[in-house]
Amino acid sequence: MKKRHICFVVYSRANYARIKTAILASQCDPELTTSVIVGASAVLYKYGNVSQLMRSDGVNISAELYNAVEGDLPVSMAKTTGLGILDLSQEFLRITPDVVVTVADRFETLGTAIAASYMNITLAHTQGGEITGSIDESVRHACSKLAHIHFPATSEAKEVLLQMGEDENTIFLVGCPAIDLAKDTPFENVSTILERYSGVGFEINPNEPFLLVSQHPVTTEHLNSRDQINETLIAVEKTGLQAIWLWPNIDSGSDAISKKLREHRETHPDSKIHFYRNFSAEDYVNLMRNTSCIIGNSSSGIRESSFLGVPSVVVGNRQQGRQHGRNVISVANDSNLILGAIEEQLNHGKYEADYIFGSGDSGKQIVKVLKNIELNVQKKFKRR
Amino acid sequence: MKKRHICFVVYSRANYARIKTAILASQCDPELTTSVIVGASAVLYKYGNVSQLMRSDGVNISAELYNAVEGDLPVSMAKTTGLGILDLSQEFLRITPDVVVTVADRFETLGTAIAASYMNITLAHTQGGEITGSIDESVRHACSKLAHIHFPATSEAKEVLLQMGEDENTIFLVGCPAIDLAKDTPFENVSTILERYSGVGFEINPNEPFLLVSQHPVTTEHLNSRDQINETLIAVEKTGLQAIWLWPNIDSGSDAISKKLREHRETHPDSKIHFYRNFSAEDYVNLMRNTSCIIGNSSSGIRESSFLGVPSVVVGNRQQGRQHGRNVISVANDSNLILGAIEEQLNHGKYEADYIFGSGDSGKQIVKVLKNIELNVQKKFKRR
Amino acid sequence: MKKRHICFVVYSRANYARIKTAILASQCDPELTTSVIVGASAVLYKYGNVSQLMRSDGVNISAELYNAVEGDLPVSMAKTTGLGILDLSQEFLRITPDVVVTVADRFETLGTAIAASYMNITLAHTQGGEITGSIDESVRHACSKLAHIHFPATSEAKEVLLQMGEDENTIFLVGCPAIDLAKDTPFENVSTILERYSGVGFEINPNEPFLLVSQHPVTTEHLNSRDQINETLIAVEKTGLQAIWLWPNIDSGSDAISKKLREHRETHPDSKIHFYRNFSAEDYVNLMRNTSCIIGNSSSGIRESSFLGVPSVVVGNRQQGRQHGRNVISVANDSNLILGAIEEQLNHGKYEADYIFGSGDSGKQIVKVLKNIELNVQKKFKRR
Amino acid sequence: MKKRHICFVVYSRANYARIKTAILASQCDPELTTSVIVGASAVLYKYGNVSQLMRSDGVNISAELYNAVEGDLPVSMAKTTGLGILDLSQEFLRITPDVVVTVADRFETLGTAIAASYMNITLAHTQGGEITGSIDESVRHACSKLAHIHFPATSEAKEVLLQMGEDENTIFLVGCPAIDLAKDTPFENVSTILERYSGVGFEINPNEPFLLVSQHPVTTEHLNSRDQINETLIAVEKTGLQAIWLWPNIDSGSDAISKKLREHRETHPDSKIHFYRNFSAEDYVNLMRNTSCIIGNSSSGIRESSFLGVPSVVVGNRQQGRQHGRNVISVANDSNLILGAIEEQLNHGKYEADYIFGSGDSGKQIVKVLKNIELNVQKKFKRR
Repeated sequence: MKKRHICFVVYSRANYARIKTAILASQCDPELTTSVIVGASAVLYKYGNVSQLMRSDGVNISAELYNAVEGDLPVSMAKTTGLGILDLSQEFLRITPDVVVTVADRFETLGTAIAASYMNITLAHTQGGEITGSIDESVRHACSKLAHIHFPATSEAKEVLLQMGEDENTIFLVGCPAIDLAKDTPFENVSTILERYSGVGFEINPNEPFLLVSQHPVTTEHLNSRDQINETLIAVEKTGLQAIWLWPNIDSGSDAISKKLREHRETHPDSKIHFYRNFSAEDYVNLMRNTSCIIGNSSSGIRESSFLGVPSVVVGNRQQGRQHGRNVISVANDSNLILGAIEEQLNHGKYEADYIFGSGDSGKQIVKVLKNIELNVQKKFKRR
Repeated sequence: MKKRHICFVVYSRANYARIKTAILASQCDPELTTSVIVGASAVLYKYGNVSQLMRSDGVNISAELYNAVEGDLPVSMAKTTGLGILDLSQEFLRITPDVVVTVADRFETLGTAIAASYMNITLAHTQGGEITGSIDESVRHACSKLAHIHFPATSEAKEVLLQMGEDENTIFLVGCPAIDLAKDTPFENVSTILERYSGVGFEINPNEPFLLVSQHPVTTEHLNSRDQINETLIAVEKTGLQAIWLWPNIDSGSDAISKKLREHRETHPDSKIHFYRNFSAEDYVNLMRNTSCIIGNSSSGIRESSFLGVPSVVVGNRQQGRQHGRNVISVANDSNLILGAIEEQLNHGKYEADYIFGSGDSGKQIVKVLKNIELNVQKKFKRR
Repeated sequence: MKKRHICFVVYSRANYARIKTAILASQCDPELTTSVIVGASAVLYKYGNVSQLMRSDGVNISAELYNAVEGDLPVSMAKTTGLGILDLSQEFLRITPDVVVTVADRFETLGTAIAASYMNITLAHTQGGEITGSIDESVRHACSKLAHIHFPATSEAKEVLLQMGEDENTIFLVGCPAIDLAKDTPFENVSTILERYSGVGFEINPNEPFLLVSQHPVTTEHLNSRDQINETLIAVEKTGLQAIWLWPNIDSGSDAISKKLREHRETHPDSKIHFYRNFSAEDYVNLMRNTSCIIGNSSSGIRESSFLGVPSVVVGNRQQGRQHGRNVISVANDSNLILGAIEEQLNHGKYEADYIFGSGDSGKQIVKVLKNIELNVQKKFKRR
Repeated sequence: MKKRHICFVVYSRANYARIKTAILASQCDPELTTSVIVGASAVLYKYGNVSQLMRSDGVNISAELYNAVEGDLPVSMAKTTGLGILDLSQEFLRITPDVVVTVADRFETLGTAIAASYMNITLAHTQGGEITGSIDESVRHACSKLAHIHFPATSEAKEVLLQMGEDENTIFLVGCPAIDLAKDTPFENVSTILERYSGVGFEINPNEPFLLVSQHPVTTEHLNSRDQINETLIAVEKTGLQAIWLWPNIDSGSDAISKKLREHRETHPDSKIHFYRNFSAEDYVNLMRNTSCIIGNSSSGIRESSFLGVPSVVVGNRQQGRQHGRNVISVANDSNLILGAIEEQLNHGKYEADYIFGSGDSGKQIVKVLKNIELNVQKKFKRR
C-alpha cells in the first residue's frame, strides 16, 4: 500500500522553529513519506541560510524554491506570493503529497494554502485562530478558511476557529511545536553559542547581563518602520546594557529597518549592540533562557518566552490582541514607554513557566493526527 | 483634492454580470475615479470575449491581463492565480487605487484579494458569506477574511460574515447586482436574441418551449466531470424539448466537459441541443425569462432565477448549501432524478418573484458606500 | 564516478518528432543519466496529449510543466516563454543536468536556452543555422548564440553557424532525427492508422487518394491567419480530393485558424476534409508515405517529405528561405496558386529520396557527441 | 497622425548611463511619444535607487517593475529574466510602443528583447557586436539576433554584426551614449561630489590622489567571486592609496563579493577604502576625471575611460576580448599582477583621448534614426 505522504513547506527561519519537531517526527516514522520544501527567505544567505541549518539538523530537503522578489514595498510581498504559487503548484504536481502542512501567518503561507487547496490536496495549518495586528492577522484567518485540518496552539485560538465556522472534528489543540524546542533543548553557555556566529558590532561579554532584541516591520504601517525601530534603539541604548540584536525578516519595511540599524552603527561607535543575522532555534532558546529581557515584536517574545518565563517587552501593534502569558508587558512605539517597561521587567526578573502554548509534545501530536485522520477536500461552513 | 479611486477587477463572464451595475454607477459619478481591470478567461475569445462585451456596454477598461494558464488539471487554476497576483500587483502599483472591488468566489478572486490586501489597499468583496460546495466555498470565505468591506447579497450571508468575526460596521447588506440587471433589462424576443449569436447544433425554434442549461465542473470532484455532464445530457435529451446549452467556464474539469459535449454532438446528430459560447448578461436575462426551466449548477439558477420566478433544477454539489428561493429543486448527478425534477418544474410553471438576493439597486448602493466609508487596512477579528 | 546527465526539453508535438530518437538513444545508454522535461502545449490534451504519447513510446518523463498562457495574441507567446523560464530554472536547479538539449526554433525554445545558459549548464541546440520566416527565424539564431554545442541538420545550416561566429569544434553536422523516424518506421496501412484516432468530419476512405494538410500561423503576420488558412481551404476543396487536416499549433493566430476551420465545417457539410488533433510521429510518417501531396507550412513538408520523396506544396512565408529538396513547390497564400501547385504535384507523383536532412542515424550521433565532448560554458565569438 | 512611440527599458545603473542622452533627446522631441520603463535592480534602493536618480534628471518614468528575484545563485538571474518577460509583455500590451530600445548585454536585456520581438514590436539594440567574457557575451549576441535595428558603438562591433548575418541597412554606427555624458558633464570638485553620498569606511581626502574601483562578478565563474575580489582588495591595500569602491551589481556572485567586502571592513579597521552604493553618471564621470587609476572589470574602465584618457587596469575575464583604447592594461585575477599594473599606470599618468567609442553625440543620432527609419518586424539572415 502506498504510504501516506506528508509535505511540509518552510518559508522563513520563524516558520522552521515552529514546525521543526513535527518535521523530524514525520521523517522518523517509517510508515510515512515526508517531503520538505524550502523557499522564499529560507533559502537565502542574507536571511540566515535556514536551508543549510535544516540540513545540519538532519532534515531531508526535497526542493529549494527561489521566489523572494526583492524590494521593500508591499508589491514585493504580493509578487513573492504569486511566484511562490507558481513554484509550489508545479512541485506539488511532481510529488503529489496527500497532505500539505503550512505554518502560521507569514504572507507567503497563503500562497502555499492556495496551491494545495486548489489542487485538491488536504491542507493542514498550524497556529491558526490567534489574533494579532499587521497583515499576519488577515493571512492567518484566510489560511484557516482554506485549511482542512487545524492545529491551533491555544484554547482561545481553538474557540476562534470554531467561531469562524470550522468543523470541530478537524480542529486539534496541540500547542506550538516551538515549545517542544524550548523544552527539549539542552542547556548551553552563552559564550559557547556566540562563538558560532560572527555578526558585527560590540563584543558581547557572555558573563554579563544582556538584552535580546528582535523587531520586524509591521506591514500595514511599513512607512513608519524607520521611526518605530528608532524608538526601540533609543530605549535599548539608554538601559546601558549590552544587547544581542537580530536583523529583521523580509517583510515590507525591512530595508528601512536594516538601513536605520546600519546608520546607527556608523553614528554610534560606542553602542553596546551586536547585530546577528540568525541563530539556530536551539541557540536562540538558550539565549532566551539567559537574557535579562526580550524586546521587540517577534512572536517568540510571546510564545517561547511564556514557557521559559523570560521577561518580555512587546512593542507596537504587530502582536496586538495575541493571547500571552503574565511575563509580557505590551507598549506602544515610544522610547520612554519601552524603556520604562524594560526597567520594570529587569526589576521583576524571571517568571514562572506558563503552558498556554503547550507543554512540549506538539510535533508528535501533529504527526499522529496527520497519520490517522481521514482525508477530505470539500469544506463546508458550520453555522453556530 | 484627489478623488477617491475605485478599481474593479473582472475575471469571468459570471463576474461581470454580478458587478456590472456597480461599475457603471461608479463610472457615472464625477467625484470618483474608476478603473476596470479585466483578466483570465474574461479576455479570451474562447470564453465569450467578455472584454469586448464590456466595451460595447460603455465600460472603460484600463488593463487587460493575460494570465489564464492552459490545462484541465487543478494545477492550472493554481498557476492562473499565481500569475494573476504578479500581473495585478504590478498594475495596482501603477494606478494606486484607494479601493479594489473583487467579486464573489471564483478561484482567481483570491489572487485579487491577496494583491490588494498585501499592498495595503482597502479591499471590498461582494457576495461573501454564502455557503456552497466546490473550491468556491473555500475561496469565498478566505476572501472575506482578507476584505475590509463586505457586500453580502442575503441576510443569511450577512449572519455568516458576522459569525466569521468580521466587524459589523464593515458589512453592508445590498443584495446582488445581478438582480439589478434582471430587473432593468428591457424585454426582447428570443428570436431577436438568438440572431446575435452563432454557436453550433440544432436550430432553436424561438416560438417553442426550450430548456436553458449551464453546468460547470465541480473542482473538488473534477475527475467526475465527464460522468456528471453525461447524466444531465441524458436527462435533457429524454425531455424531448429543445435546449440552449452554454459551454462551461475555465475551472478544472471544463476540458472534460467540453470534450464530452463535442462527442455528444458527433454521436447524436438528432439532438435538439444548440451550444452557445456566451450571451451578454441582458440577453441571458431574457432567455431566463422565456425558458421553461433552467438546469445545471450555475449560480444564475439560484440568484437571478429566484427574482424572475423561473423554475430551476440545480444539479450536484456545486451550489449545495446556498440559500435559495422556492423556485429551486436540488438533485444529485443522476439522470433519472434530474429528469424527474425537470418534469416537476415543467408541470409547475412560473413562480412568484423572490427578493432574497435584493430588489434591484445593489450597484448604486455599493458605490454609495465605497464613496463615503472611511478607509482602513488593519483588520481585527471580532469575538462573539 | 557521477554519470553525465543529459536533459531533453520537449515543448510541442513537432519538437518531439525531431528529438525522439536521440532521447531513446540516451535512455538506452547505461553510462548516461537521462531526464526528459515536457511542457507548454506538449502536456495539453488539446494539442495532442504528447506526453501520453511519449510515455507509450517508453520515454521516462521527469517533469510536466504547465506554462502555456492562453490567448491568441503575441503577448501569450511572450508570457508562455517567461513562465517557462521560471518553471525550467527551478527544475534545472533540482536535477542539475550537465547538458540541456533544446530543439529547433519554436518560441518556447529560447526560454529553455536562457534557463540553461544563465545557470551555467552546457546547452546543446538542434536544427540551428536554417533560414526561414516567422519569429522562428529570430528564435533559432538567438538560440544558437546561447548554445555551446550545435547539431545542424544540413551542410548549409552548418555554414550559417560558422558565419555567425560559432566555434567549428562545437558544430556537428548530424542531420535531423526526424529523418531517423522516417527511415525506421515500419510500414502500416492507412486504414489501421486512422482507426486509432477519432477527429471530426468527413469519413476518410483509406483506399482512395488523399491530401495531407498542416498549416500553422505565421506569428509575424498573425492578424492575417484567418485569410491565409481560407486560401488553403478553398484550394483543397477545389481539388475534389479527400483530405486529412491537422489542427494548428499554439502560436499566435492559431485561435483564428481553429475558428475558421470550425466555421468551415459548419458551413460546408459536404466538405471532404477530416480534422485530427494529432498523430504519433510514426503514424504521421506512414500518412506521408501514402498521401498524394502534403500541403501547408509545417516543416515536415520540407524535412521528412524530402527523404520520403513525397510531393509537397509549401504555402506562404513561414518556411521562406529554408533549404529544401526537389520535391517542394513553394507558393504564396493564394488559392489559385496553391491549387495550381497541388495539381502539378499530383501530375508528377512521387520523387526520389533526398538526403539533405540526413540519412537516418542523427539521434545516435547526437548522443555520441554529448557523451564524449568536453563541456564548457564560456562562449567566445569567432571572427572570420 | 499618431506619433511614433519609442519605449526605453532600463534595468540597472549601468544601463542608464549608456542610454540617458538618447532618452532625454527622445523626450525633447515633440514629434515622438516617449515611454521609459524601469525594472530589476534599477528600482531598488540597495542598488542605488536609479529610478529616483532618473526622475531628478527629468526622465518621465512610465512604469516601475519589481522583478528582481533574490539570491546569489544563477537560478535567480534566470528567474529575474522570466519574471521580467511577464511584466514587460503586459506593459507593452498596454502602451503599444512602435519601437522598444534595449541596452547592451546585462542578462535581463534578453527578456526585453523576447517580449518586444515576440509581440511584433520593432526592437532596437545598443552596443551590440562587442566581444567579452561572462554570460554577457552570449546575451549580447542573442539580443542582436532578435533586434531589428542595431546601434553598435565601435567600427569593430559593426563588422561583427555584419558577420553575424545582420542586414547592413539596419546597422548604425553611432558610438556609445556614455561618451556623450563623459563629454558634456561640467567639471566639479571631488569634495563637492563626495558630500552628496554617505557610504561607509575611510574618510576620503578629496585633495589627495585616489583609486576608483568597480568590480562585478563573472557569472560564468561565479563560484570564484570571493577569491577574485580578494586579489583586488589585496592589491589596492598594498598601494597605500585611498580608494573609492563601488558595491557590485546584482549578478550571480554579488552576494559573495558583498560579504567579502563587509568582512574586509570588519577585519581591516585601518583600511583606506570607502564603499559607496552608487554615483550619478555625471558624478562618476568627474570621479573618473580625477582618479589616478580606475580598477576592476566594469565596462566604464574601457568605455568612458578611453575618452577621458584615464589610466585603467582591467581585471579578469569579464571584459576579455572587448576592443579598448591604449589606456587599458589587462591582467588576470592575481594580486601581484594587479598591483604591478596599477603601479605602471600610476607612473604613466593620464593618456590622450581615444575616440573608438564615439565622439559625444550618440544619443541624438540614435533618436534621429528611430524617428525616421521604416519599421519592420520580419528578420532574414544575410549570407556573406
